[in-house]
Amino acid sequence: MAQINDNYEKLQASYLFSEIARRVSAFSSGNPDRPIIKMGIGDVTEPLPESCRRAFHAAIDEMGTHEGFRGYGPEQGYPFLREAIAENEYQARGCSISADEIFVSDGSKCDSGNIQEIFSIDSRIAIPDPVYPVYVDTNVMAGRTGANVNGRYEGLVYLESTPANGYIPSPPAESVDLVYLCFPNNPTGACASREQLQAWVDYARREKAVILFDAAYAAFMRDPDLPRSIFELEGARECAIEFRSFSKNAGFTGTRCAFTVVPKDLKACNRQNDEVALHPLWNRRHTTKFNGVAYPVQRAAAAIYTPEGKAEVDALTRFYMANAALILETMQGLGFSCVGGTNAPYVWIQSEGSSWDIFDRLLNESGIVCTPGAGFGPCGEGHFRLSAFNSREKVEEAMARLQMAFA
Amino acid sequence: MAQINDNYEKLQASYLFSEIARRVSAFSSGNPDRPIIKMGIGDVTEPLPESCRRAFHAAIDEMGTHEGFRGYGPEQGYPFLREAIAENEYQARGCSISADEIFVSDGSKCDSGNIQEIFSIDSRIAIPDPVYPVYVDTNVMAGRTGANVNGRYEGLVYLESTPANGYIPSPPAESVDLVYLCFPNNPTGACASREQLQAWVDYARREKAVILFDAAYAAFMRDPDLPRSIFELEGARECAIEFRSFSKNAGFTGTRCAFTVVPKDLKACNRQNDEVALHPLWNRRHTTKFNGVAYPVQRAAAAIYTPEGKAEVDALTRFYMANAALILETMQGLGFSCVGGTNAPYVWIQSEGSSWDIFDRLLNESGIVCTPGAGFGPCGEGHFRLSAFNSREKVEEAMARLQMAFA
Repeated sequence: MAQINDNYEKLQASYLFSEIARRVSAFSSGNPDRPIIKMGIGDVTEPLPESCRRAFHAAIDEMGTHEGFRGYGPEQGYPFLREAIAENEYQARGCSISADEIFVSDGSKCDSGNIQEIFSIDSRIAIPDPVYPVYVDTNVMAGRTGANVNGRYEGLVYLESTPANGYIPSPPAESVDLVYLCFPNNPTGACASREQLQAWVDYARREKAVILFDAAYAAFMRDPDLPRSIFELEGARECAIEFRSFSKNAGFTGTRCAFTVVPKDLKACNRQNDEVALHPLWNRRHTTKFNGVAYPVQRAAAAIYTPEGKAEVDALTRFYMANAALILETMQGLGFSCVGGTNAPYVWIQSEGSSWDIFDRLLNESGIVCTPGAGFGPCGEGHFRLSAFNSREKVEEAMARLQMAFA
Repeated sequence: MAQINDNYEKLQASYLFSEIARRVSAFSSGNPDRPIIKMGIGDVTEPLPESCRRAFHAAIDEMGTHEGFRGYGPEQGYPFLREAIAENEYQARGCSISADEIFVSDGSKCDSGNIQEIFSIDSRIAIPDPVYPVYVDTNVMAGRTGANVNGRYEGLVYLESTPANGYIPSPPAESVDLVYLCFPNNPTGACASREQLQAWVDYARREKAVILFDAAYAAFMRDPDLPRSIFELEGARECAIEFRSFSKNAGFTGTRCAFTVVPKDLKACNRQNDEVALHPLWNRRHTTKFNGVAYPVQRAAAAIYTPEGKAEVDALTRFYMANAALILETMQGLGFSCVGGTNAPYVWIQSEGSSWDIFDRLLNESGIVCTPGAGFGPCGEGHFRLSAFNSREKVEEAMARLQMAFA
């Protein structure tokens, strides 16, 4: 008789977005004449850059010819894309990462969700709070946690991101095997400084832990002193895996392309306590359970490394960051304590009362949808997130409404 | 200290394709003037259909406008594609499958590899021999097997496909929880009759087992009496999950789109022995670890259900099946015992001696690359596979060479 994976029964229903949708829908029905502005969403709004579209079209035309047709490609990605990534994202910033350490995929959600498979089921795992839920849920599904008690799973080590530590947790006193970190952070927008990130790298090397570093928002960093990649830090090649994405910088949320870097120096132990390189393990996972990204999509992604593509991506990230600046300035002007918004497209705002209270107030008074912080974990309580992914017009209108409501 | 998933150390290196590449490369170096024809490959060669390319282009143009831009879509696929699949692949053939039972994905390799995650780690699993290696390897990685001993993993139940049973295994005497089946079969090209498949459905219902049915090659079936989908069989909604793909019928191996059907009637037990529906479990898995297929790719896939698209796909499958007929006729004419080739794009051929011996003979005497059967499992020994995925010209040339060599 077939039996389910019982770990799925430990998962909490993801009430957040369905509850948001329910409240928004109720508001709309009761107020059909009041236009809503969605400031909660983490999805891009601007069109796909022209260089990407041009390369995309050209690749489809190639697929229409016998000579240009491409069937199965290398699961790890075509060399033209892996090389462009290695050169532009890493070597140009002084990071020694080679093309064959890069695994092209269809999304950082998939990669950051799947990476746990190559590690022991007994791994002790540190996870930020608040957090992108995928890191947690995929470990729950795999059976690395106990039950959920008051919003936290037994067996995980939570790294609290609070006003007290400037939303940047320090390494824990205890020993862990795997650490999920995300900078610029989703949802807080906080960025670790070079020193703060170096402390994590040093911890990981000391403990022989592996850092799973999500840098999906790296392109939004403006401060030149902040590390764009964990591989800018001394020793990171021996202790880190990095997830990067074209979703947010180049508007690929609906086009799907990302990549993961697994350095060849990175090792973990097997049961006999022998050191084993993780690169071949991830390669085996990736080639067994994944069949590569569509050739035209890889061509579209590679186009962002052309001079025109670079200019377009730069313009896109500047556009969203100008929205972020407007949000940050407005909210700070209204007396709110905020983080993010200067090196990340999210502004994380402290509120009095519960995050659902502020959600309701923004919706009912101003017709604005935010994301209540509690949806990202207990430490998100007392906060809400506003996203810079929107048109300028809507951000300006939203800020004008908030100034009216809170002035 | 980070520890690896030790199950990866049980995996056998996938020598098959690297060993083929090594021998082909050695032959080429020694015989630079003798052109090789690759007849082993399971990848399509004909261009992407024009209707697909047209829809693909149009969707990219949409992505270039504010109004038409699409970011994150529903992880399960856009309704336009799910509805077209439900209508054309199922309802049109009398199968009661609804659009919301269809999960669009980027490949059957991924889906058939990931499906095991929603089942208990203690599941007893039946796997064909010879077999598409993904079914086996993903269960090894998950820890559902013991060591590999003489080409077989301890703990799996092997379903032997041999000349004695016409390459269609019957249900085993013992009880299992999960059964992987693939018809038209890869690698053998054998197709289960309605009665044979009904026997499996009846077995699964009796044992409360779940059949994981890979029908990636369904479009190549010519015999109108053969079931294209397991859901044509009585009771299959209660015991089966089906994997389908656009890779082979519409030439999407480099474009990446597929789908999996999980009927809402399908249940398995949890630890408390309560019945649990599998549809929400797979939905949770799919939405947590996957972020949908690119919007333009989904538009390209949906185009195969337009009248023009249907005609193009029909022409493509006819083209490859005419190659298959040529291969089958030639090999049978040379006295070989064959299966497949009439309802599948693969011909599975019995050889005297080891499958690597025949591989070497074909390569050295005729410059033809086949796939040695032993690469698919112990029961593949004494067989080799020729694929119909090639140009007519190359198939004709290959068959002429074989007629010379074996006549």
